[in-house]
Amino acid sequence: MSEMIKLIKNRDLNKIKELLNENPKRINEEDENGVPMSFYIARTGDFEMLRFLIEYSFASFNIGDKNHRTCLHEAVMSGSLECVKYLVERVGMSPCDADKNLVTPYQLAHENGLAEIEAYFEEVTGAKYEDMYHNPIRRGFFADPSIVRVGSDYYMVNSSFIFFPCIPISHSTDLVHWEVIGHAITNPDWAHIDDLEGGRGYWAPDISYFNGKFYITATLRYNDDVDVKRRQIVVSSEKPEGPYSEPAFIEEDGIDPSIFTDKDNRRYMLLNRGARILELGEDCTKKISDAELLYYGTNKRAPEGPHLLYKDGYYYLFEAEGGTGLMHQVTVSRSKTLKGVYEPCPYNPIMTQRDYDAPITCCGHGKPVETQNGEWYMVYLCNRLLDGEYGILGRETCLDPVTWTADGWPIVNSLNGPSYLQKKPNLPAMDTEEKSRFDDFDGDKLKPDWIFPRTPEADGITVKDSKLIIKGSRCPLSSTSAKNITVRRQPDFNFDVVCKLDLGIKLDSEQNYGMTGYYDENTYFTYGIYKNGDGYALKLFEKIDEDEKYTCTVDITEVTDSLYLKISTEGLKRTFSYSHDGKTFTEVYAAENLYYLCSQAISKGKRFTGAMIGLYAYSGTESTIYPSFDSFEYSAK
Amino acid sequence: MSEMIKLIKNRDLNKIKELLNENPKRINEEDENGVPMSFYIARTGDFEMLRFLIEYSFASFNIGDKNHRTCLHEAVMSGSLECVKYLVERVGMSPCDADKNLVTPYQLAHENGLAEIEAYFEEVTGAKYEDMYHNPIRRGFFADPSIVRVGSDYYMVNSSFIFFPCIPISHSTDLVHWEVIGHAITNPDWAHIDDLEGGRGYWAPDISYFNGKFYITATLRYNDDVDVKRRQIVVSSEKPEGPYSEPAFIEEDGIDPSIFTDKDNRRYMLLNRGARILELGEDCTKKISDAELLYYGTNKRAPEGPHLLYKDGYYYLFEAEGGTGLMHQVTVSRSKTLKGVYEPCPYNPIMTQRDYDAPITCCGHGKPVETQNGEWYMVYLCNRLLDGEYGILGRETCLDPVTWTADGWPIVNSLNGPSYLQKKPNLPAMDTEEKSRFDDFDGDKLKPDWIFPRTPEADGITVKDSKLIIKGSRCPLSSTSAKNITVRRQPDFNFDVVCKLDLGIKLDSEQNYGMTGYYDENTYFTYGIYKNGDGYALKLFEKIDEDEKYTCTVDITEVTDSLYLKISTEGLKRTFSYSHDGKTFTEVYAAENLYYLCSQAISKGKRFTGAMIGLYAYSGTESTIYPSFDSFEYSAK
Repeated sequence: MSEMIKLIKNRDLNKIKELLNENPKRINEEDENGVPMSFYIARTGDFEMLRFLIEYSFASFNIGDKNHRTCLHEAVMSGSLECVKYLVERVGMSPCDADKNLVTPYQLAHENGLAEIEAYFEEVTGAKYEDMYHNPIRRGFFADPSIVRVGSDYYMVNSSFIFFPCIPISHSTDLVHWEVIGHAITNPDWAHIDDLEGGRGYWAPDISYFNGKFYITATLRYNDDVDVKRRQIVVSSEKPEGPYSEPAFIEEDGIDPSIFTDKDNRRYMLLNRGARILELGEDCTKKISDAELLYYGTNKRAPEGPHLLYKDGYYYLFEAEGGTGLMHQVTVSRSKTLKGVYEPCPYNPIMTQRDYDAPITCCGHGKPVETQNGEWYMVYLCNRLLDGEYGILGRETCLDPVTWTADGWPIVNSLNGPSYLQKKPNLPAMDTEEKSRFDDFDGDKLKPDWIFPRTPEADGITVKDSKLIIKGSRCPLSSTSAKNITVRRQPDFNFDVVCKLDLGIKLDSEQNYGMTGYYDENTYFTYGIYKNGDGYALKLFEKIDEDEKYTCTVDITEVTDSLYLKISTEGLKRTFSYSHDGKTFTEVYAAENLYYLCSQAISKGKRFTGAMIGLYAYSGTESTIYPSFDSFEYSAK
Repeated sequence: MSEMIKLIKNRDLNKIKELLNENPKRINEEDENGVPMSFYIARTGDFEMLRFLIEYSFASFNIGDKNHRTCLHEAVMSGSLECVKYLVERVGMSPCDADKNLVTPYQLAHENGLAEIEAYFEEVTGAKYEDMYHNPIRRGFFADPSIVRVGSDYYMVNSSFIFFPCIPISHSTDLVHWEVIGHAITNPDWAHIDDLEGGRGYWAPDISYFNGKFYITATLRYNDDVDVKRRQIVVSSEKPEGPYSEPAFIEEDGIDPSIFTDKDNRRYMLLNRGARILELGEDCTKKISDAELLYYGTNKRAPEGPHLLYKDGYYYLFEAEGGTGLMHQVTVSRSKTLKGVYEPCPYNPIMTQRDYDAPITCCGHGKPVETQNGEWYMVYLCNRLLDGEYGILGRETCLDPVTWTADGWPIVNSLNGPSYLQKKPNLPAMDTEEKSRFDDFDGDKLKPDWIFPRTPEADGITVKDSKLIIKGSRCPLSSTSAKNITVRRQPDFNFDVVCKLDLGIKLDSEQNYGMTGYYDENTYFTYGIYKNGDGYALKLFEKIDEDEKYTCTVDITEVTDSLYLKISTEGLKRTFSYSHDGKTFTEVYAAENLYYLCSQAISKGKRFTGAMIGLYAYSGTESTIYPSFDSFEYSAK
């Protein structure tokens, strides 16, 4: 223990002053875990020592420890209301700032029964802890959100890229809890995504409503080996959940289309680069004018995601800029006429995360919505980076309040970047009953959580007798022609999955089936059952771009009817085990760093999605297997 | 010439489209000088090609070339008003954005007689080119500005550190042109700066006015080897130019004091860390309360420079945060009561430069002032970094307009960071007659441009018979006891200095005199006359911390009455030459990289000043020399 820590623990302020007078920089020492001295002081709850630290030492208070915890977290745990109030009121720290695990000082006060501090935080934030929500509101791969309100119902669409069904449509009544109710394209013949490389397909959709109909538009992004690489599609339906019409194609290069209907009911498509506009026919299936540039953008790097809003005499033009990484941002400009000239908002970017070490980063690509009560919110995308680098969960969706400045500009979360803990909208709560994460494949079709890279075969997926039967793919997962890979989004960094599968089917030497951690055809692992003499072996196979390897092989000597496979995930670490009875698990392998199930892992093609977890079967070309799966249980930790 | 450049020069848009369809990233190619393809396109003035580039290519428009020139600079020079209008109105580029030499598109239009474009820029900016001013308004080492208006006169003070006289006071009527009219401390016995290391001394002063008197306060920062390292001083005078009273000491640790007089005429000192406040007696010479923290800050790194302003029912608290480097910024908070609680401005930072490659960076430490016409401005410090790294000129002073948002917050230059070219304040112009940079030492005292590291000896500096006579110092320039070093600020990156000095005095083997490029006792060079047998030699001596060397020695074979020494400076390159007649100069040495005359050069002690250029004489301990100097001419290039 360092001299400084000893003095702090002994509350020997005079000696601390002496030490710092000799060398003021000693206050910037850290312990062996990178915890700054200010944390040790805050932990004591000693007000005089804390005050000296802040008013007379060289400590900075824009830093946390490596878990992004702040001094205020520590002061809360000390129980000292005096220290907490001082840090909030005089130092300007927030009870809603979060550490890497999204834990806020308010949550600490709430969960540790620190009633006095919790009551103070209620006064400061204006809301009880129970009346707050956490960002991201949609975890796991829900990128590029667009939103529309009809009456008291909210609908959101997100990018689906090569996953089928295409473009999920979700519903909410409270803006915080969401449920997938359908997809824009459910007919495989209308999807046009087979043979597309990972990261291509349906990009950044928009949902809007006009004259009794929902309209969804998106970019269909092809592989690079064709002349026309980007087309815009439009589908419509009277019901938000669909079915939607066969996609109409709008032939215009660009991405991120959205539909805007002007006061005179003329209809337009906006799309990048910058914000370009073209007029559509009344049913939005035809382009009836050339595109022209409204406004390029404020940041002027990768300006995209244009959305128009008409309000109080102004056309407000929202854009996503900076690229969908750490510099991502939402900007706005406005004009009194549709075609401009547009003036940029002086408060741009109206949403961004400038602290690249923060728990929620890469914030941008948003669309505002007004509630039935006249409040405004924005949904926008974010990314949570493991070790500051790996966006394993994919780009997720956040929600934050929009306020209008006195000079008529919309700003998001008071320009404070993404909130971690925020007052819930004044809206009727959704039925928030926690949905079971246990799937026993009851009924006659898959639950809507399950999706597929590209369309599955017509007879590829069968749900029968409480089992999921997957027709083994002729092509391996490394091929864009692989079929019937059945996966779900990974919404948490830390979770267990257990799948019960049937043994007893006959395998040839290349056939295998089991679980997969899937990003795309370039980066994934399979944890599957293989033939092994007269019995079975379990193998972990990893593919990281050109690097393919069987990391581990274990004989399954005892042959039973079924086997439980389990993957425990803690960040980048995944531990693989199996069990015959579902109770006692035998560890097979602990992979310390499965970093590659994310966009940042390699540089190849288009990487905009997130880690998936699910089931697969591989037949190869000689014969076809139809393994069955009994259950799949996902438990966040 | 690359394929792409050829196609652009041939205006072959179809071929360019083909090329980019194969590989869209080719638009991000640069020529061998780092000039992007977009510049080549803008230079053609071909509107269709430019429009394609912006609306359909992957080019970014938040980048310039390595000289920070933009596409708009190029489009102006093409003469195409159509391209220029499109870039301004649809892409959002500014006619007032500057390259590394602070040249703006507006200046290019003006200086190249592009009348149509100049007229358009006048319409866009709302001002004729002649009615604009350039930042920085005060060039060379004028750091940490504070300002006060009395009637229609403006007074500014800046940090002087170890230089004497202490704390320059400048006057202006138009906020753009300034003249040093006096100093807060001119009596050497009151200065307390002898033996202080470079970078210590008087830090970050503030000037205010109350009841017929000017008050200046500053921190006196001692060397580290004493117990009390920081004291606050206060001086006052009825006349802005002084003389001021003997400094009163306020015993409170901290830096950046300022004086605030409340509505009830009670008087306070604010100082860091954060914004702390203590009450002063009526004449501000005594502390009558303990300090307490008003508000720490928004950024919470190195919060300092607190200034209070009472306006329309609010106390506005301005702070400098982020440290005085690239992250420097001005933030503001407010409260309806003096003692708080203060709420931070949602638009913080209200001034900062986020583009670290910009021509003007490190912007912060500002104080607002209201003109007699009810307009508001802020003076704040900046730094111009050579090669993105070396702040040779020291921290300088900028001016930008402050506007008040509809919700009552002050923002600087519409939150656009420092302006390069800005509409002049609506104020009577100063007599802007360009002062001669030629000093022939007429009169009986030195012009106020000349300053000294620490106090000169009483008989150290004599101006007589149109000559400056310097008493040679017993200690070398590397000592904090060196005396009579006579220097002036370096306000330009590129300039020539020529000094005429008398030969003919007898020197012993260690004595020398001549010119110096001086930062502090740790980094400087001398270019001086030494004994050489019966004649003289010229030597360049460089000191970079522990590294001391005679870089070059040249015999002066022809002995005349006087000699001209010349130093030509172009950025980090300095060329040394001499002449007998002042017309034909013989080059002695070209030093390619004299980077060390700036704060960023080495890490030692406190480095907050800038490069000086001037004269010195070294006697050593055996006898004393009194060399005389005939003239000193400074010409910016």
